Amino acid sequence: MPLSLKQRPMPVQIKSLGPRSPRPFQLEEFLASRTAAVNRALDQLLPAAAVKPATIHRAMRYSLFAGGKRIRPALCLAAAAACGGEEADALPLACAVECIHTYSLVHDDLPAMDNDDYRRGKLTSHKVFGEGIAVLAGDALLTQAFELAAQCAAWPRYSHQTIVLELARAAGSLQLIAGQVADLEGEGRRLTAGQLRYIHERKTSALLCCSVRLGGMSANCTPGQLQALTVFGYNVGLAFQVIDDILDVTQTSEQLGKTAGKDTKAQKATYPSIVGLEQSRRIAARLTQRAFNSLKVFRGKAVALEALAGFLLKRDR
Amino acid sequence: MPLSLKQRPMPVQIKSLGPRSPRPFQLEEFLASRTAAVNRALDQLLPAAAVKPATIHRAMRYSLFAGGKRIRPALCLAAAAACGGEEADALPLACAVECIHTYSLVHDDLPAMDNDDYRRGKLTSHKVFGEGIAVLAGDALLTQAFELAAQCAAWPRYSHQTIVLELARAAGSLQLIAGQVADLEGEGRRLTAGQLRYIHERKTSALLCCSVRLGGMSANCTPGQLQALTVFGYNVGLAFQVIDDILDVTQTSEQLGKTAGKDTKAQKATYPSIVGLEQSRRIAARLTQRAFNSLKVFRGKAVALEALAGFLLKRDR
Repeated sequence: MPLSLKQRPMPVQIKSLGPRSPRPFQLEEFLASRTAAVNRALDQLLPAAAVKPATIHRAMRYSLFAGGKRIRPALCLAAAAACGGEEADALPLACAVECIHTYSLVHDDLPAMDNDDYRRGKLTSHKVFGEGIAVLAGDALLTQAFELAAQCAAWPRYSHQTIVLELARAAGSLQLIAGQVADLEGEGRRLTAGQLRYIHERKTSALLCCSVRLGGMSANCTPGQLQALTVFGYNVGLAFQVIDDILDVTQTSEQLGKTAGKDTKAQKATYPSIVGLEQSRRIAARLTQRAFNSLKVFRGKAVALEALAGFLLKRDR
Repeated sequence: MPLSLKQRPMPVQIKSLGPRSPRPFQLEEFLASRTAAVNRALDQLLPAAAVKPATIHRAMRYSLFAGGKRIRPALCLAAAAACGGEEADALPLACAVECIHTYSLVHDDLPAMDNDDYRRGKLTSHKVFGEGIAVLAGDALLTQAFELAAQCAAWPRYSHQTIVLELARAAGSLQLIAGQVADLEGEGRRLTAGQLRYIHERKTSALLCCSVRLGGMSANCTPGQLQALTVFGYNVGLAFQVIDDILDVTQTSEQLGKTAGKDTKAQKATYPSIVGLEQSRRIAARLTQRAFNSLKVFRGKAVALEALAGFLLKRDR
């Protein structure tokens, strides 16, 4: 699904976008080429759909190629570029974070969890393959992510041990899964802004931050660069989820390609439901501004990261 | 749950048990001490039950400490000992394979898969915590396994990359998950002995073989030793599942601590249903004999592995 760069008018202006390269950065071009590269790599690195048992490989590929926007891989590749890395070194990691993201959606859509029939305008995995295979396809994508991570190039500063631990911790019971659990347990309960932030930090920000950090690691980044990428990833990740909450109440299902108003229906707390729509927009803009500020250390080389953060703030789906 | 060494009379005699150490190997002692060591390590390496969100850590620990026989960790530690390794180096890997095994049971017991209410005489995870948390607890245990694997000591011959790839491949869509898929798809269908072997090799043998190989790797074993461990693990793993099939038809639920006659009820093909009970026993004995033969390269140092293979053949639950 091509990315739409149509922007809704935003109530908050972002101040400085930092130093500019002579030719304005072409985000649409960057996203299209990187999505194509990630899709090619995923296609090459995963077992073909015909490999026995075909059901599991068809199910893995069904969800992996169901029109995901490849935001996490794009962030990973953009972070590698900011640190002067080679795209080929970052690609296995970009694919690994996408496998983790996809597995989490497949399991999250299950009847025992969010019980969603559609995702990105297509039937969810369990509606096509049945619940048993959907559970196993999620398991297989999660396992595949570690196989991909272990296949990346290692560097003096970032060994395979460091890289696998980074991914395992971001995806584990203290981060991504903690967010899913808190989200599941929070349904129908009144949450404070702090509790909601706890969920969003883990459910969304952890893996986005990890994607950016792994991109830096694939480029053997300096400790200072890694620190900057961590601040960037955390803030962009949290902003991303706040905007998701906003879109859930302001957009139609057709615009989103998934069920809109889902959070309200599931009695899920969201930023708009706790602090209101306008304040939510201000929070998203403030987080994005912090992400921009963190990029100063790259002295103009983080154009792709900067453009991505701006785009994610203003996206309409 | 202490292991019972009570043995049923077996129709097939095992020939040579290889060279013996002066004092006969005390398997019961070995199993008790290694189970205690693995339990201590798991308790130390996993987040405490009270760590937020407590539900997921309670659920992970509930299944992990539900009385598993710790066969895979014992095989891992015994393989390390055969290669002259230190137990401390093998323990994180022994814990990792147990996490993979436990996750596969938690997901396998789900209503969408085998739909089991009891496992080892206790309620299954989804009966205690609900299906959503059971899915997530399985996911968390799988993720935890890679965190543990990446924490082991690495050696000149076996880097973290090698170790993580070993685990990811054994647990992935071509091995463990392939077995689960083929098992799910085979229900109610007539399978040939070859098709059943395909399932058993993947569903059971792959992770047992991986456990043994990882034990060897943790001891920086020679390529020849690794090859011997591979043959041993494959054959013991396959024998293990054939015996599981036999016990399912010959033992009561009470004796097994899980629903007996389950395979027949689910119309699952088993070795006894395809080749008969006596022939199944002969196959298990022949596989175990092959496992014994592979240990010659260790020149009497693989006493624990040998004793374990003999015990697994003659177990009654």
